[in-house]
Amino acid sequence: SEPIRATLFPGDGIGPEISESVKQVFNAAGVPIEWEEHFVGDKVDPRTESFLTWESLESVRRNGVGLKGPMATPIGKGHRSLNLTLRKELGLYANVRPCYSLSGYKTRYDDVNLVTIRENTEGEYSGLEHQVVRGVVESLKIITRQASLRVAEYAFHYAKANGRQRVSAIHKANIMRKTDGLFLKCCREVAEKYPEITYEEVIIDNCCMMLVKNPILFDVLVMPNLYGDIISDLCAGLIGGLGLTPSCNIGEGGIALAEAVHGSAPDIAGKNLANPTALLLSSVMMLRHLKLSDKADQIHNAILSTIAEGKYRTVDLGGNSSTTDFTKAVCDHL
Amino acid sequence: SEPIRATLFPGDGIGPEISESVKQVFNAAGVPIEWEEHFVGDKVDPRTESFLTWESLESVRRNGVGLKGPMATPIGKGHRSLNLTLRKELGLYANVRPCYSLSGYKTRYDDVNLVTIRENTEGEYSGLEHQVVRGVVESLKIITRQASLRVAEYAFHYAKANGRQRVSAIHKANIMRKTDGLFLKCCREVAEKYPEITYEEVIIDNCCMMLVKNPILFDVLVMPNLYGDIISDLCAGLIGGLGLTPSCNIGEGGIALAEAVHGSAPDIAGKNLANPTALLLSSVMMLRHLKLSDKADQIHNAILSTIAEGKYRTVDLGGNSSTTDFTKAVCDHL
Ligand SMILES: CC(C)[C@H](C(=O)O)[C@@H](O)C(=O)O
Ligand SMILES: CC(C)[C@H](C(=O)O)[C@@H](O)C(=O)O
Repeated sequence: SEPIRATLFPGDGIGPEISESVKQVFNAAGVPIEWEEHFVGDKVDPRTESFLTWESLESVRRNGVGLKGPMATPIGKGHRSLNLTLRKELGLYANVRPCYSLSGYKTRYDDVNLVTIRENTEGEYSGLEHQVVRGVVESLKIITRQASLRVAEYAFHYAKANGRQRVSAIHKANIMRKTDGLFLKCCREVAEKYPEITYEEVIIDNCCMMLVKNPILFDVLVMPNLYGDIISDLCAGLIGGLGLTPSCNIGEGGIALAEAVHGSAPDIAGKNLANPTALLLSSVMMLRHLKLSDKADQIHNAILSTIAEGKYRTVDLGGNSSTTDFTKAVCDHL
Repeated sequence: SEPIRATLFPGDGIGPEISESVKQVFNAAGVPIEWEEHFVGDKVDPRTESFLTWESLESVRRNGVGLKGPMATPIGKGHRSLNLTLRKELGLYANVRPCYSLSGYKTRYDDVNLVTIRENTEGEYSGLEHQVVRGVVESLKIITRQASLRVAEYAFHYAKANGRQRVSAIHKANIMRKTDGLFLKCCREVAEKYPEITYEEVIIDNCCMMLVKNPILFDVLVMPNLYGDIISDLCAGLIGGLGLTPSCNIGEGGIALAEAVHGSAPDIAGKNLANPTALLLSSVMMLRHLKLSDKADQIHNAILSTIAEGKYRTVDLGGNSSTTDFTKAVCDHL
C-alpha cells in the first residue's frame, strides 16, 4: 500500500536533531510514512506574513498531518510569530497535551495522569490592543460561541474516545461573566450530549491550587487560550518539564499538527545533547491520529521502557547520554 | 498610652470563630488594640452598592488598619461582590501574600519562601465586558501606568524593607504587548531606583512551571491582577492551602487590610472546627504594618511553634483539635 505522506517541520536549534531521532525510530518500527520536510524561510513570505513559506502550510493542508520541532521566531518587525501563524492559518483550534508521570523519572508527583485541551485561536490572543489615553492601555479578550463549542466538542469527543471519565472546564466566570460565561455555556451544551462523562467547572485559581496539591483529582481539562497556556505548562512541570510532554494541535478539516512545545535550545544545538522525548511522544500522537494504533503503541512503549530503565538519560534529565544513544535505546526496545 | 483602634470584619461562616481566636491571642499577648467590629449588612447600602455598610468602610479609612475574615457574597442582582467592593472603595492596590513552608506540616515541598504581590484593582477585573454580536463577546483588560507604578513601587519597597534580594515581574507581554508591556515598563522604571535588588521578568506559563518544579527560584513576585490571583493560589497549594497562608491588602493613604483569603466554610461553621491559622498569620501582618514588631514576632513564633509541635492540628490538616484547642495552644506558646 501507498505510504502516508506527512509534513515535517524540523524547526530550529535542536529541532533537526530530535527530528532525526523520530525518523530513525519510525524507520526501525517500519512506520509507513513519507516525510515532506519544510524549513522556516529566511525572509517574510507575504502570503503568510511570516517566515513560514506558503508551500509549507499547503503541505500540511494537503497531507492533513504534520510534526513540528521547536521554532524560534526571528526578532524584528513586519512579521508574525511562527507559532501564532501556524495556529491562525491552519485553524488549529485545540491544543491537546496528555500529561502523565513517567516511571523512571522521579518528580515530587507520581500520580499525574491528565490531559489539557486548550482553545488555541482566540481569547487573550486576539492581538487586539490599544492605548486609550496616555498611560491607559487595554487588550481585548474575545470569546466566540463557535470556537468555544468546537473545542468543547473536541474535549468531550476526546474523553469518550480515550476512556476518560470526566471533563473539567476551567474558567474565571465569577469575574469575566460574559466571556468565560459564554465559554462555560458552550461547555454545558456539549456536556448534555455526553451523559456518560462527568462534567464539572473549576475556577482557575482553585484549579491551580488543586493541581499542585493533588493532581489525581483531574482527568480532562478544557479551557480558553491563556488558561490553557498557563495550566498546560504547570502540568508539564509536575512531571518534569516540557522536554517530556507531547502535544498535538487539532485544526480545521481534521488537520493534526503534533509538536514539541519546548524551546529550540540554541546553546546545545548541533551537539547531540538534546532530549528527543517530547517530539517522539508527539509523533506517537500523530500516529494515533492516523489510526496507526499498533505502531503508536509499539513506539510509545519503547519510549516509556527506555525512560523507565533509566540507563540512557539525556543531560537535561541529569544523565549523560547523547541524543543518538537515547534514540538507539528506543529503537532497541521496539 | 492610648490603644490602637483597628477595624474587624469577622465575616461569615467560620469567620466569627477564627476572629475570636485572634482576639484571644491578642489578649494573651497584650497587644494594645481595640477592635471596631463591623458585620456585613443584610441589605444593599446604596452608598457602597453592596452589602457592606458605609460605616464599615469609614471605620477602615479612619483607623487605617483592619482585619477581615471570609465573606460570602450573597447571591442575587443589584449589588457588587464584597471583596471587589472593598478593593475598589478602599483603593486596595496591592495584595501581599508571603508563602513559606511550615515545618510541622509536610507537603511535597519544603523549600518555599516567597512573597506574591498582586495588583488588585484593574487588569482583567475591570468589569468591562460586552457582546459584540450574537455569539461574540469581549472583555477588556485595562492596565494603567499609575496602578502599575504603584504596585511596582510597593513590591520593591517591600523587598528592600524585608531583606529580600529579588523581584520577578510576571507577565505575558509576548502576547499582550501593550497591556503587559506597560506593566513591565513600569516595573523596569522602578527597578532602576533599587539597584540593590535584582530584577527579572518571567513569562507566566514558564513561571508556573518553575514554581511547581523548583519554587526556591523565586523571592518576591509582582504581577497584574489575574496572574496574581492564579499564582498566589498556586503558591498556597505548594505549602498546604489557603488555610495556612496570610494575606494583607495595601490601600490608598497607607491603609492595610489583612485578610484570610480562604472561604467561609459554611458546612463547619459554628462547630468549633475551623482552622484559625490563616487569619492569625494575617493579623501578624497587620501588627507588622503597625510597627508592633515585638508583638508580631511573639505571636508569629507562637503560631509556628504550635504547628511545628504538631500536637494540636485542626480537622482540615488531618488532626482532630478544635479551634479553641489550637488557639489555647498558641496562647500557651506565647
Ligand atoms: C511562544 C508563545 C507565543 C506560546 C503561547 O503563548 O501560546 C507558548 O507559550 C506555547 O504555549 O505554545
Ligand atoms: C472571590 C474572587 C472574586 C477573588 C478574586 O478573584 O480576586 C478570590 O479568588 C481572591 O483571590 O480573593
